[in-house]
Amino acid sequence: MDIRRRNNVTVTGRADGPVLLLAHGFGCDQNMWRLVAPALAESFRVVLFDYVGSGRADSSAWDERRYSSLEGYARDVLEVAEELDLRDVTFVGHSVSAMVGVHAAAKAPERISRLVMVAPSPRYIDEDGYRGGFSAEDIDELLESLESNYLGWSAAMAPVIMGNADRPELGQELTGSFCATDPDMARVFARTTFLSDSRADLKTVTVATLILECRQDVIAPREVGAYVRDAIPGSRLVTLEATGHCPQLSAPRATTGAITDFVGAV
Amino acid sequence: MDIRRRNNVTVTGRADGPVLLLAHGFGCDQNMWRLVAPALAESFRVVLFDYVGSGRADSSAWDERRYSSLEGYARDVLEVAEELDLRDVTFVGHSVSAMVGVHAAAKAPERISRLVMVAPSPRYIDEDGYRGGFSAEDIDELLESLESNYLGWSAAMAPVIMGNADRPELGQELTGSFCATDPDMARVFARTTFLSDSRADLKTVTVATLILECRQDVIAPREVGAYVRDAIPGSRLVTLEATGHCPQLSAPRATTGAITDFVGAV
Repeated sequence: MDIRRRNNVTVTGRADGPVLLLAHGFGCDQNMWRLVAPALAESFRVVLFDYVGSGRADSSAWDERRYSSLEGYARDVLEVAEELDLRDVTFVGHSVSAMVGVHAAAKAPERISRLVMVAPSPRYIDEDGYRGGFSAEDIDELLESLESNYLGWSAAMAPVIMGNADRPELGQELTGSFCATDPDMARVFARTTFLSDSRADLKTVTVATLILECRQDVIAPREVGAYVRDAIPGSRLVTLEATGHCPQLSAPRATTGAITDFVGAV
Repeated sequence: MDIRRRNNVTVTGRADGPVLLLAHGFGCDQNMWRLVAPALAESFRVVLFDYVGSGRADSSAWDERRYSSLEGYARDVLEVAEELDLRDVTFVGHSVSAMVGVHAAAKAPERISRLVMVAPSPRYIDEDGYRGGFSAEDIDELLESLESNYLGWSAAMAPVIMGNADRPELGQELTGSFCATDPDMARVFARTTFLSDSRADLKTVTVATLILECRQDVIAPREVGAYVRDAIPGSRLVTLEATGHCPQLSAPRATTGAITDFVGAV
């Protein structure tokens, strides 16, 4: 199988630079990194890809069972890393991809040696002693609405997730990204995203980890950023001067700066 | 009635500069001008607004009958111009708004003294001796599909209309813009857009007119640009180094340059 084609892999930047592997979240694709990739490419070798089921990845490689777990998405990551023989990679995962990175780094620490988590959440549903930001009913309703009318859900929710209502083009771009995703594959990815519980996995992280959170994010509230930091030994939490769930689009310079500082400092 | 609030009017740029009134097309709003407005604001007083039924205009002012004709949209334009007491305005209309500008200039030539038509078409449907680019059946199907599933139509069509498939964020932004429009109001605006015939009106244009077309545009093919130029006495046609139907987003510098040259040259 041609992994580069399957995952629509793009390699840019400094050929001899340290490697950044940028992984998009639910309903998105590598285009999500378009405002940070050019600046990062000045210092890094930047590898972009789309998960199967997203963007321009090969949808004939779709496998509902595989992509019903975060491990399935982590296999995409590792297969891309193997195909390009990447080592000592800084894996930058947005949203659910931050947890995909936890699984990938656990499987292949010789390849993934640093994690940057952009707006991560290991668990969206509140429990006694844990606040993820959503009740179980909230998530059930979210998934029901998404499953019954994916495009309507996208149009309503993407601008809320993006935040930054004063820059409507950002919400519109995210709406379009959601709408461009195959609804059947999006339904599977949504369930994986919103129902997974990766809290126990955080404690297994042994690689250097940077957590980037936004000041205000309806998907990943501040308590979650602090939880992730406390759960991962030695991790660092940076609160970006940004709002919404997608700082790589809404605050690309702050995001680029934090990633660059982290890789330089480790 | 507070027209500024009703039409979500924004005024920026040089207070003593010549006035540009920028008018968006179907499924869009003033955000459509976001990549050209800052540069234009250096030389011009730039007035932006949303038609009732679009963007953040006051939807309580919606009137299906009024907005079923281009004259209704032209009334929005003229009411904004009166409210701000604008005179000697260059009206820049994108897509269907180019034809709205024809009506507005005919009604109030003391206010609208120049027209810039961005990707205009006076008639989408082919006829003997006229090629608009669509058969009557094409347009019927387009409207049926739009009316039965507006969001699905938006997700499918916006990227095609935008063109520039190598920059998917552009199609995604247009998808999001379409999806953000109220479906019932969009249905009315779509019928007005795609069923109007403004060919006879072109001959009545007496103001200086610049026609901007793109090299390749599925909505307004090259023949239509030539038709508009031939129909409007003394008009000038410029083919932008751009593809798709929205050069103000896909080729903002070329668009800004052409507008600035035209107003300076008149």
